[in-house]
Amino acid sequence: MSSVNNLGTLLARLTSMLNTRSPLIPCFHTLRTVPVSPKREWPKLFSSVNSTLPFSSAPNFDFKAYMLDKINTVNRALDAAVALREPRKLHEAMRYTLLAGGKRIRPVLCLAACSLVGGSEATAIPAACAVEMIHTMSLIHDDLPCMDNDDLRRGKPTSHKIFGEHVAVLAGDALLALAFEHVAASTEGAYAARVVRAIGELAKCIGAEGVMAGQVVDVNSEGLTLSMSDEVAVLERLEFIHVHKTAVVEGAVVMGAILGGGSDEEIERLRMFGRCIGLLGQVVDDVLDVTKSSEELGKTAKKDLVADKLTYPKVLGIHESKEFAHKLVHDANKMLAGFHPPKAAPLFALTNYIAYRQN
Amino acid sequence: MSSVNNLGTLLARLTSMLNTRSPLIPCFHTLRTVPVSPKREWPKLFSSVNSTLPFSSAPNFDFKAYMLDKINTVNRALDAAVALREPRKLHEAMRYTLLAGGKRIRPVLCLAACSLVGGSEATAIPAACAVEMIHTMSLIHDDLPCMDNDDLRRGKPTSHKIFGEHVAVLAGDALLALAFEHVAASTEGAYAARVVRAIGELAKCIGAEGVMAGQVVDVNSEGLTLSMSDEVAVLERLEFIHVHKTAVVEGAVVMGAILGGGSDEEIERLRMFGRCIGLLGQVVDDVLDVTKSSEELGKTAKKDLVADKLTYPKVLGIHESKEFAHKLVHDANKMLAGFHPPKAAPLFALTNYIAYRQN
Repeated sequence: MSSVNNLGTLLARLTSMLNTRSPLIPCFHTLRTVPVSPKREWPKLFSSVNSTLPFSSAPNFDFKAYMLDKINTVNRALDAAVALREPRKLHEAMRYTLLAGGKRIRPVLCLAACSLVGGSEATAIPAACAVEMIHTMSLIHDDLPCMDNDDLRRGKPTSHKIFGEHVAVLAGDALLALAFEHVAASTEGAYAARVVRAIGELAKCIGAEGVMAGQVVDVNSEGLTLSMSDEVAVLERLEFIHVHKTAVVEGAVVMGAILGGGSDEEIERLRMFGRCIGLLGQVVDDVLDVTKSSEELGKTAKKDLVADKLTYPKVLGIHESKEFAHKLVHDANKMLAGFHPPKAAPLFALTNYIAYRQN
Repeated sequence: MSSVNNLGTLLARLTSMLNTRSPLIPCFHTLRTVPVSPKREWPKLFSSVNSTLPFSSAPNFDFKAYMLDKINTVNRALDAAVALREPRKLHEAMRYTLLAGGKRIRPVLCLAACSLVGGSEATAIPAACAVEMIHTMSLIHDDLPCMDNDDLRRGKPTSHKIFGEHVAVLAGDALLALAFEHVAASTEGAYAARVVRAIGELAKCIGAEGVMAGQVVDVNSEGLTLSMSDEVAVLERLEFIHVHKTAVVEGAVVMGAILGGGSDEEIERLRMFGRCIGLLGQVVDDVLDVTKSSEELGKTAKKDLVADKLTYPKVLGIHESKEFAHKLVHDANKMLAGFHPPKAAPLFALTNYIAYRQN
């Protein structure tokens, strides 16, 4: 299928069609009812992290210092949560990918959401570690030869390349289990009922209603032959894949809001915010995959092209994908309206960071 | 290494050595301090389920009717817990192995433990489903080509043979996540703090302190060359593998006891009971693997031999393995002493069922 050049026409068709809830897109279609923003010069949006951040309601917020501080907190907590014990090979494999770097966007989102609704950051630290653990396990399994068969992750050889496939499978499983154990055993300062609710969200975002659903449809859509006549079906499928594959972003924000004592209305608003920026991150990933090198990304570039994956650049074209990303930034910021602006500054800044990042 | 013929001498050496807690055997060595029972005629113990059950303090207890009733309850609950929704392929794969039969020993143990400590059985049904889900996921991943590479499970082709490796990996992951979601979202009649504690146990028994630890040491012990000089080290390693690979049995009993409102003393006594019968089940499995056909087992027979696995028959010989199983039945029954005998009847009977089963 050729790229869809008339994005406005297509989105209008989608919007009217999506008034009926699609079984493949449980809630997300509401976002589509927001009109597409006027065109902007995209290269400016894809500039460095240090550039002036649009949309932020706290322009003097020092995002870099904030991120360094939070990433430091998260890395220390992760290191302590996965001690190097027996069996060493299993724990070495768990630590290898978990502590290999990574942007730590999900755990920081969890901490920021907790603080935003008035909670103590310390309450959300086990949950923040848990979302990074489940994200990492999804990467380890996604890289397996029977999945994406990838050699490079977080700038290093993938887990199965170092430890063998069987250990990579088990290390992923163990990280998934540890995530739940860690939240259950180490969360302090929240009512038990809120911990149970947060655990439910953690499970939902990684399971058959979250990442695993996205992965299975993703793999089964490789090499899909597209025709102009099924544009809407193709975009629906693409959105299903991306919203589900990035469900941990939504889960991270929602867990933070629950554990921080947020009201149901705050939690649901932050859920939509998380869903927006999760999809945003995936759209940006799609674009980076075709515009950057492996060295710049720290993982194998052009792999979506090689695997003939269903991606936004493939369906919409690069320019229109950037346009869609911009709309998602706009929608995400709308969800933050109503929160105390200085407290929301980290989430505004994180949204822009996700849109601007270069790898 | 030849089989160890003098079990008494070897266990005496182990018992004195294990007074110092081995890092590989966190708690289990205490069981070894119970002297080996006098020899019994083993073929009688390995007779059918319908035979008179020794050790049971309620000889008129109708075990068959009890099991049929509980298995029916569990199967209905599992069917409802994993509805066939989108993406269909993922849910079909999750249901395929989960609903393919199986003895349902773990979920029934969970229900029985809950009732034993005075809880309502309904409170433990989501936990009972959860332990079957995580057990099934461990089987799906264990059967993968990069692990045991097995073709037959529960009398049917293995998951990856039907759905492909990538779906089998994802279905296992999704079942693991669903187990936690199900307990968190569906448990009723227990304090939230107990639900959190039960979720912690669920995670621990399947993760790096449970099944995954056993699996990784198991795979790494294939083809291990043994010599008489390291008998104790070999038995320690074997016990580590088996106790950890069967940790879901312990987890099932402990979760039932927690959710049923058991005291800490009751929970810990039932933990040791669960650990005994978990190891018992694995020793019996080892023996059945070398003495039964694939048709009789409903899974590939002699696979431990083919993979040159570390097993009790390999290390101790078949007769001594049966002797060790008998000792474990004895130890398990000791842990049930002190509970109200009629209420403990299902657990006495389940212990014997595990020892007597033919597949």
